[in-house]
Amino acid sequence: MTEPLRLGIAGLGTVGAGVVRIVQTHAAMLEARGGRPVTISAVCARSRNRDRGVDLSGYDWEDDPVALARREDVDVLIELMGGEDGPAKACVEAALETGKHVVTANKAMLAHHGQAMAEQAEAAGRALKFEAAVAGGIPIVKALGEGLAANGIERLMGVMNGTCNYILTEMEATEAPYETVLEDAQRLGYAEADPTFDVGGIDAAHKLALLAAIAYGTRVDFPGVQTEGIDRISLTDIHQARDMGFRIKLLGVAKMTPLGLEQRMTPCLVPAGSSIGLLAGVTNAVVVEGDFVGQTVFQGPGAGQGPTASAVMADVLDISRGQVGTTFGVPATRLAAAPRASDAGAAAYYLRMSLQDAPGTLAKVTAALGEEGVSIRQMRQYDHEGGAAPVIFVTHPAERASLDGALGRLGAMEECIDAPMALRVEIL
Amino acid sequence: MTEPLRLGIAGLGTVGAGVVRIVQTHAAMLEARGGRPVTISAVCARSRNRDRGVDLSGYDWEDDPVALARREDVDVLIELMGGEDGPAKACVEAALETGKHVVTANKAMLAHHGQAMAEQAEAAGRALKFEAAVAGGIPIVKALGEGLAANGIERLMGVMNGTCNYILTEMEATEAPYETVLEDAQRLGYAEADPTFDVGGIDAAHKLALLAAIAYGTRVDFPGVQTEGIDRISLTDIHQARDMGFRIKLLGVAKMTPLGLEQRMTPCLVPAGSSIGLLAGVTNAVVVEGDFVGQTVFQGPGAGQGPTASAVMADVLDISRGQVGTTFGVPATRLAAAPRASDAGAAAYYLRMSLQDAPGTLAKVTAALGEEGVSIRQMRQYDHEGGAAPVIFVTHPAERASLDGALGRLGAMEECIDAPMALRVEIL
Repeated sequence: MTEPLRLGIAGLGTVGAGVVRIVQTHAAMLEARGGRPVTISAVCARSRNRDRGVDLSGYDWEDDPVALARREDVDVLIELMGGEDGPAKACVEAALETGKHVVTANKAMLAHHGQAMAEQAEAAGRALKFEAAVAGGIPIVKALGEGLAANGIERLMGVMNGTCNYILTEMEATEAPYETVLEDAQRLGYAEADPTFDVGGIDAAHKLALLAAIAYGTRVDFPGVQTEGIDRISLTDIHQARDMGFRIKLLGVAKMTPLGLEQRMTPCLVPAGSSIGLLAGVTNAVVVEGDFVGQTVFQGPGAGQGPTASAVMADVLDISRGQVGTTFGVPATRLAAAPRASDAGAAAYYLRMSLQDAPGTLAKVTAALGEEGVSIRQMRQYDHEGGAAPVIFVTHPAERASLDGALGRLGAMEECIDAPMALRVEIL
Repeated sequence: MTEPLRLGIAGLGTVGAGVVRIVQTHAAMLEARGGRPVTISAVCARSRNRDRGVDLSGYDWEDDPVALARREDVDVLIELMGGEDGPAKACVEAALETGKHVVTANKAMLAHHGQAMAEQAEAAGRALKFEAAVAGGIPIVKALGEGLAANGIERLMGVMNGTCNYILTEMEATEAPYETVLEDAQRLGYAEADPTFDVGGIDAAHKLALLAAIAYGTRVDFPGVQTEGIDRISLTDIHQARDMGFRIKLLGVAKMTPLGLEQRMTPCLVPAGSSIGLLAGVTNAVVVEGDFVGQTVFQGPGAGQGPTASAVMADVLDISRGQVGTTFGVPATRLAAAPRASDAGAAAYYLRMSLQDAPGTLAKVTAALGEEGVSIRQMRQYDHEGGAAPVIFVTHPAERASLDGALGRLGAMEECIDAPMALRVEIL
């Protein structure tokens, strides 16, 4: 029998328990598909006595993740503790130092330290793999880095935060405002007690930065992601978007432009009938557009025990087969530092504003838009009470500079009651 | 510089020219992503003088694909000639005999000879890869064999023939009957002059048999695929299905049941709003349901120069990185010969029949269904001219044996003008 591949699991939350469950459930299958048995040598978590629904009695227990990482009977460290620094980083570094392979679901850590860690792993000839860090069970890291690797990537898009997509879908379905739906999501366990990372777009931006590195052969540039959360999205926006044939999604877009790499994780309008527009609930989807393949769409559960553990174990099987590869698809030392571009190229925008209900207001607003070079495609003024009329525009494609010029002028008008809100329209 | 990976391309149709185009367009990227340069040593096709829109002057020409396969300066034979036997088979066997890796888009050849060829390749430690043979540009072979490899697969489904999906979509959109749309598709180049392989479901059944082997670790069993074409589907069926919230698709389903492996490539009703129901035109989609990951959906262009060449080159890059692997995800000698099961388990069915417009007919029909254990969920009788009333049923889930019993009795009734037609309803 071939030597087994021996795992050390750091972190026994829902995903860690899922990994244990797969190893126990599918031992024969993993051996057949990976070419050698997969075993667990030791596990590590904060509390030893919690019932995790899996039998851990066959494995050694470590209190210290760094000690786990350094064990001689561990070939692969599976890091599932989370957190961009602290014990997660320490144990990954210890594992790489001592010649272990690493599999992690930790997008925050890789978004910040991925470059250094990838260089360390590749210098040691070891794997650093992170399928589980992006879009849960969807094997998108592999699809992008291997399955579509013969393409120049023209655009990469994704809905990669289930919490946000659940909230936006529920707002449309139940007519409840953002705050109410967020509270429901927290009660249901779809959102954290502190939801900032999710609803602020930061979690999704981490993921986008990792995928962009693979897509474009560039260094992970998380600070370069223009990030905006969904908390400004009102029921009005959702209704108006729908009336005009769109849906609002927290959409990640990465694109190499003549000016540099554009990375955005912002609420966008997308065609309601497109694959992204139709995406409901906590499901994730990633759209990859390649110069030879055209448009491909990958859809599946973006989180949860089973899906995330499935992705972790796919990485383990790669290692089992000897597919060490590179972390981001090309050697880390060859990743380029791309200049940052933002909103390069023209796009249509959705504008929501609240205007004084007085003669001549609309004329003044539309004149300002026109003078700044922003041409109107659709306009709706809604019935209202009081002196403020909600007005929605969807523009023809305009340069961001023109739009910003127009927004500045509109914001300065006394007829404009609140600062106008703009969302980009992304056409799939 | 590392030694280049040298290709020999047998077949210079649209896909072969696409492969040449990728090698020429993306030389630097292929080297970065594959770890070594990719070059073309020689090419081979039937006619040397045809203009293929690519510059072949830098490559040797071979008239004989077997000679190409045996060349010492070829590391990977790319077989793009097609045909289950003949020159395609001969040159693949010659390549494997002489220690070459093989990449092919030839589903017919692998559906018939995949087992023997995989054993030959694996015995020699060489790759036999076929990402391009299934679902064009969608990296589904890799997703199933690697990305989702830690899952027991519960069900595999797919729309894997663009021609059929185009015809069914166009029938719904244009209200034109099957024959007219097929002629249009032939004029547009979406269907072959002899469309039997496509509309008869054979091409798609080849693909399903290959994916099922990966999903279930079983030997490719193409003759075991229950195959039915789309030529019996009428506009009436499409309308009635739509009225009841379904769409008709040529759907492949593979499933391991307690009785054995069930493989079907038949027209089915699927929920209109499901990912498969929404699939329009020549796009392909594959749905994989795993015991840990849940439901994942892979969608993209199922044919054409760019997408198919993209898949071929993904396999070449795997080989370039040393990822030889196994053809069907586990060693070919370990693939099990699964018993065949058909229509295991209960399913809802759509029944179309034409009944004599006479008192008591419907009572007799519904009584027969009930007595055979087939319970009715939806029933519609449509307005008609003449003495024949079109009647549609959608049943509650019923065993196939019960349904066949009912169909037998209905077919024997004089009130039943034509033999009733049954289509399975597949719920996603």
